[in-house]
Amino acid sequence: MRMVDLIRKKQENIELSELEIQFIIKGFTEGIIPDYQMSAFNMATYFTGMTDQEVSDLTMAMVKSGDQIDLSEIKGIKVDKHSTGGVGDTTTLILAPLVAACGVPVAKMSGRGLGHTGGTIDKLESIPGFQFEFSQDEFIELVNRHHVAIVGQTGNLTPADKKLYALRDVTATVQSIPLIASSIMSKKIAAGADAIVLDVKVGEGAFMKTLEEAQDLAQTMVRIGQNVGRKTLAVISNMDQPLGNAIGNTLEVIEAVATLKGQGPADLTELCLLLGAQMLVASNLVTSLEAGERLLQDKIESGAALEKFGEFIDAQGGDSSFINDSSLLGSARYQIPFKAKRSGILSHWVADSVGEAAMVLGAGRALKDDKIDPTVGIVLQAKVGDKVQEGDVLAIIHSNDENVADSLSRMEAAVEISDSVELLPLVYDIIE
Amino acid sequence: MRMVDLIRKKQENIELSELEIQFIIKGFTEGIIPDYQMSAFNMATYFTGMTDQEVSDLTMAMVKSGDQIDLSEIKGIKVDKHSTGGVGDTTTLILAPLVAACGVPVAKMSGRGLGHTGGTIDKLESIPGFQFEFSQDEFIELVNRHHVAIVGQTGNLTPADKKLYALRDVTATVQSIPLIASSIMSKKIAAGADAIVLDVKVGEGAFMKTLEEAQDLAQTMVRIGQNVGRKTLAVISNMDQPLGNAIGNTLEVIEAVATLKGQGPADLTELCLLLGAQMLVASNLVTSLEAGERLLQDKIESGAALEKFGEFIDAQGGDSSFINDSSLLGSARYQIPFKAKRSGILSHWVADSVGEAAMVLGAGRALKDDKIDPTVGIVLQAKVGDKVQEGDVLAIIHSNDENVADSLSRMEAAVEISDSVELLPLVYDIIE
Repeated sequence: MRMVDLIRKKQENIELSELEIQFIIKGFTEGIIPDYQMSAFNMATYFTGMTDQEVSDLTMAMVKSGDQIDLSEIKGIKVDKHSTGGVGDTTTLILAPLVAACGVPVAKMSGRGLGHTGGTIDKLESIPGFQFEFSQDEFIELVNRHHVAIVGQTGNLTPADKKLYALRDVTATVQSIPLIASSIMSKKIAAGADAIVLDVKVGEGAFMKTLEEAQDLAQTMVRIGQNVGRKTLAVISNMDQPLGNAIGNTLEVIEAVATLKGQGPADLTELCLLLGAQMLVASNLVTSLEAGERLLQDKIESGAALEKFGEFIDAQGGDSSFINDSSLLGSARYQIPFKAKRSGILSHWVADSVGEAAMVLGAGRALKDDKIDPTVGIVLQAKVGDKVQEGDVLAIIHSNDENVADSLSRMEAAVEISDSVELLPLVYDIIE
Repeated sequence: MRMVDLIRKKQENIELSELEIQFIIKGFTEGIIPDYQMSAFNMATYFTGMTDQEVSDLTMAMVKSGDQIDLSEIKGIKVDKHSTGGVGDTTTLILAPLVAACGVPVAKMSGRGLGHTGGTIDKLESIPGFQFEFSQDEFIELVNRHHVAIVGQTGNLTPADKKLYALRDVTATVQSIPLIASSIMSKKIAAGADAIVLDVKVGEGAFMKTLEEAQDLAQTMVRIGQNVGRKTLAVISNMDQPLGNAIGNTLEVIEAVATLKGQGPADLTELCLLLGAQMLVASNLVTSLEAGERLLQDKIESGAALEKFGEFIDAQGGDSSFINDSSLLGSARYQIPFKAKRSGILSHWVADSVGEAAMVLGAGRALKDDKIDPTVGIVLQAKVGDKVQEGDVLAIIHSNDENVADSLSRMEAAVEISDSVELLPLVYDIIE
């Protein structure tokens, strides 16, 4: 088998066999297939795509390129959730205890990563005492005892994907549906998921800019799941404006607590109930999304969800008393209002730009070694569709530096107040 | 300027500027742009193509990547001819003296290369005493004195093309019209051509398998020529069967002599008259192909063409007495007939397979360091369309090894005798 012939096959849109895809991924991971051949293959894939069978084979070849987490000692169907990114996405912090409160095991490995705010691990780290380094055995014991644990990623998961992504990043082949789909699915499967719920974001703050692309990606991943025996469901949700109100690490933890109390922002709550219901369906606990949402609503109203959050924090060494007194998490030195310059209807909050306004305060990382400031960030006071008066506070900037000119100018670029607005739905599509 | 952005532009079919193309070629040649980015760019080009302006800019960027031969001291318009390859193509050996006999300067640099038979230099090397290593000044003096010289390539011409071709070869991007066109044109321009005549082969023994592809390639090159101020004309000719009868180095020299005497194979003669006429038009000596063909015919009939061939051989140190006694070139030890197995009409002589049958005898190189045996090869005794009887000799295999089983089996695979045949034209298209 010669790589040049396999590149030509892909170029001519001829389906590759499982063996051929394994040859490519193994050879590339081991450095036998050079980068220049792999990048030509990726570009050919960008143009000709992949069949469902190819993208499933690619996913499993990447899973097999490294360690696979064995969660078989955890009772029940382990459901993982993945979001394709966005701004102010606090869903994992809410969903983990909420779904666990229903008795479904949530065994999550999470990372730090680059972005407007930190990853889930960074957010949880803003809680005093919270630990996320556990052995495999301790991780399994935590989940079996509490139905929930969120730990840092260990082991060498999907090295093929890491190497492939680094190459795609510099060769303009990030934006390829089969490559994105196999990358996401391989990581979830290698991390031990039996079933997967996907939140595919679409809009200005998201990786997928059009609904069509987002649907293509979601459906591709759902079909991979079917092909490789992992029940997979997906939601396509709006990321034109930030989800919820808080963008920042501590600020999002506080918002998660509010949501678990039933007092969270409407959009964040709605999406969490939907994704949570899909997780319950995926784990076979309920048979319909309606039944799932009802059960989750019960867990919020009864206080069970919030209680599970506290139990989870305590079990991982954290001090959960902030749940009743958020000041224990600390706060930024300055709270600076961002005000409306005219009256009208808030018609645009460009999610990307708001995210950058938070990042420049120190809420996220532009480079791998940047240090995150947990207390800084932005809390929106108005959302798209709200009527506002000139001088109304649209957002509060939480900063440890008095000078927030950079952040303010990004906020100004992000906001638009008009005389009318076309309201877009929060959820575009549900793929069960 | 970042290469990843330029790859994306090409991927999205946005025209690149001259500056951007220069950045790519300079960066790649100097090793600043890595192979993996260049191969992604090439694959994107394969799918989206290039505009005329882009492919002209690419050609000139490659010309400027290395040395450029300055032929300005040669009086007149220097016309070069290029053939896109094929089997039994003896045209250069014939055209060089034939056109020179009309007074048009032919200053040709030629190489060895891989293939079924050797390059023009290898063929000439089978003539006792013939030299092809000359300094730049000697080369110019030879052309000014005799109107013709064929020397080995000197200098570092189009290093960008060399590096690019090596990469394309292993990444399935050889077959891209803009990349092929710019590669050919850059080499001719760097070698000092004022005007260029192209013989684009189409068919089973050629690089271009369909007429449509061949026309696309020819027209792309002609437009490059227009854009960069080098008058360019093209012929699209059939390479379903070998051109002429001889395939092999010495054998082709003998065939060239016959053709210059007016006794050559019909197809080879016809194509040489047409290409030669285009060279005369390109050099502004005549204004029509008809006038050109008449002049060339005169030079053959008067003996001036053959005389020029002898003068050219003598001027480069060779012994031209073989012109009147071909046995002076030596011959292979065995002449083995290849016979028809049935009666009918010869309907197929797959050029590629005949070429391979010659190569395995030692007529060409599969690897760069293979040694060529000048006397071996194949001489066809029948061509497509000829009526043959069972037992007729279809070809003679010239070999220095008694065992020609491999060559014979390739000949058998190459030939087809049927009850009828659809005759294809020798020349499909003329682009003036």
